[in-house]
Amino acid sequence: MGENANEVPQEEEEDQIVNPFQVTVKKGEKIDYDKLIDKFGCQRLDPSFVERVERVTSRPPHVFLRRGVFFAHRDFNEILDAYERGENFYLYTGRGPSSEALHLGHLVPFMFTKYLQDAFKVPLVIQLTDDEKCMWKNLSVEESQRLARENAKDIIACGFDVTRTFIFSDFDYVGGAFYKNMVKVAKCVTFNKVVGIFGFTPEDHIGKISFPPVQAVPSFPSSFPHLFSGKDDLRCLIPCAIDQDPYFRMTRDVAPRIGYQKPALIESSFFPALQGETGKMSASDPNSAIYVTDSAKDIKKKVNNHAFSGGQDSIEKHRELGANLEVDIPFKYLTFFLDDDDEVEHIRKEYGSGRMLTGEVKQKLIQVLTELVERHRKARAAVTEEVFDPQMFQDEYQAVIAQSIL
Amino acid sequence: MGENANEVPQEEEEDQIVNPFQVTVKKGEKIDYDKLIDKFGCQRLDPSFVERVERVTSRPPHVFLRRGVFFAHRDFNEILDAYERGENFYLYTGRGPSSEALHLGHLVPFMFTKYLQDAFKVPLVIQLTDDEKCMWKNLSVEESQRLARENAKDIIACGFDVTRTFIFSDFDYVGGAFYKNMVKVAKCVTFNKVVGIFGFTPEDHIGKISFPPVQAVPSFPSSFPHLFSGKDDLRCLIPCAIDQDPYFRMTRDVAPRIGYQKPALIESSFFPALQGETGKMSASDPNSAIYVTDSAKDIKKKVNNHAFSGGQDSIEKHRELGANLEVDIPFKYLTFFLDDDDEVEHIRKEYGSGRMLTGEVKQKLIQVLTELVERHRKARAAVTEEVFDPQMFQDEYQAVIAQSIL
Repeated sequence: MGENANEVPQEEEEDQIVNPFQVTVKKGEKIDYDKLIDKFGCQRLDPSFVERVERVTSRPPHVFLRRGVFFAHRDFNEILDAYERGENFYLYTGRGPSSEALHLGHLVPFMFTKYLQDAFKVPLVIQLTDDEKCMWKNLSVEESQRLARENAKDIIACGFDVTRTFIFSDFDYVGGAFYKNMVKVAKCVTFNKVVGIFGFTPEDHIGKISFPPVQAVPSFPSSFPHLFSGKDDLRCLIPCAIDQDPYFRMTRDVAPRIGYQKPALIESSFFPALQGETGKMSASDPNSAIYVTDSAKDIKKKVNNHAFSGGQDSIEKHRELGANLEVDIPFKYLTFFLDDDDEVEHIRKEYGSGRMLTGEVKQKLIQVLTELVERHRKARAAVTEEVFDPQMFQDEYQAVIAQSIL
Repeated sequence: MGENANEVPQEEEEDQIVNPFQVTVKKGEKIDYDKLIDKFGCQRLDPSFVERVERVTSRPPHVFLRRGVFFAHRDFNEILDAYERGENFYLYTGRGPSSEALHLGHLVPFMFTKYLQDAFKVPLVIQLTDDEKCMWKNLSVEESQRLARENAKDIIACGFDVTRTFIFSDFDYVGGAFYKNMVKVAKCVTFNKVVGIFGFTPEDHIGKISFPPVQAVPSFPSSFPHLFSGKDDLRCLIPCAIDQDPYFRMTRDVAPRIGYQKPALIESSFFPALQGETGKMSASDPNSAIYVTDSAKDIKKKVNNHAFSGGQDSIEKHRELGANLEVDIPFKYLTFFLDDDDEVEHIRKEYGSGRMLTGEVKQKLIQVLTELVERHRKARAAVTEEVFDPQMFQDEYQAVIAQSIL
């Protein structure tokens, strides 16, 4: 109720539109995340959470937590309360497999989820919404499934604990308890409601209108009887980018009406495009992002030629004014992927004051990203067809999860 | 395209509204089936079909064919053409399990489908839409599934050839190839379209709006890979009451766009309520219908006390004017269930002219229905929990159908 109070039909004129299908701001402006928090009705993840997570997990908080990449939440405090009482929870994240290769922005939620899984030692379900992409992107069923499989390899390469992870595609897994939950959710949501939440129109096909329950129900443990049988009250924590919030606002609204726990969320800002921070990256422009398939040469070229610089036009002016770090993409990217706080602080000071030049910062970024992408490439190469058989996954996990952690 | 030309939003003022959720006529009027055929764009099943079916199958046509209970069709001629060329087809019918016991009107499509299966020796799939009833009738998932199971026993009791029949509930079976077809269909149908076809409104929940593809896809053999693998071009014939036509109008519109054959239909008029012919029977009034669970005493009482009579007020007037057979329910019911054409003709003449009294016709009807219900009761009692295990059904049929008929 309360958390949906600010919901307005998307047709109304708005400065920024953020939903799973559209991230739009006024030309030249950046996303106003404070406004988004107000509009969505979620909470800001203040620094006290960072300390608390460190205390509870007895390990350093992830760089994405320390630097505020994950900046908003819903009921994350309740998850921590329960965890401190000795209660377990599970993680749920996912991906719509619309492209062959992932870019760095796609990795953000998975890198963070891996950290959460390791830190809290909890089970994880990963949904690949091949049905969604088949419906939204005019892909065939077969092509959507192929992309899901390819993307799954990249996801597995992020290093999840395979004894605690269940990865599935909707085309493979929808049915049984999962489908029953879809029906339960769908009964509680009117067409008018999804118009308000997602901006659907009467000209949209009913596949789109049917989809929100598919993404909602992995929030409920009863959708996975082979993992969580008899654990209907297990809480769920969803790490995701904030554009996915509408799905889970809907889910949280419905949950108590069907006797389920509301999922908790921990939400990230968007990873900026190389060209600058005006929203999400575009799959249609390969120069807008670094892909995990990019070669060292590609990375070098993209960073040098396309990363938007906050440095000044001339060296003289730069030495005098310093770089504008608010808009500088090489620095921004380093805050995501350079783990060493001291080094980041050093660059902030030196580059911001003009003593360091853009070229040096780009050089550092190229080094960091080349190492990251190379590590990923090796990990992905180890995910062979043999290791990766969704059915096999399912059976293995079932056994291991059942005895080890729940 | 053409067959949907006459589709109009249900809000427009209409003399009669017929769709899967509503059958309404102006007070005191009967359904105008000719108008319905025009509006829906299906074809009348003229007497030449009755002869042709008799010739093709080398057996007497079913009483529901001879007496025009099944009165409309779509492409039934093509099914017969193909059958005569030696090509096979399959039958698809179903039921929404909203009540514990079936009444005679519910049996009509199943009795006719059994005849078609026997006459053409073809496979049959029967869908129990427990998901639909869960969504429309505010039943729990569990209660919908229980009703589906109870109804399945009544359906099996109709005597289907178990070596050629696959009966399933949506909650059990949705998934895999079936779900993929649901997505393919949903992509081709806009919200505006389902508003036009089914009369949905923006206040309806998205469960309703998601449902039409679920009822559509059993029309496609690829939804049943364990039955029809590699037979994607197998034609489908759907025997049903004409209020289900909107689902299959939608299905036929979509089929060629996703590379599938259009299903053919053979459609019945509505079985009238005991109180008279103004639409379908009402589950909320037990005296409006004869149930397969009614005792001989119940049947006698219901027919004697509640069956609307076309006889005259006094014996003198009746002898003079005769019964109005157009509105007489006992006679109407006999045209459904008394197989002997000579006997029906005899009653038509004698009762219509006033030589036979209402009491005698009711007496005959009570005898016919008591025998029918008693036969059904015995057959249902033979459907034990052991015989009836959906999973077992599936496995048995898979083997038998694969080797015997396709």
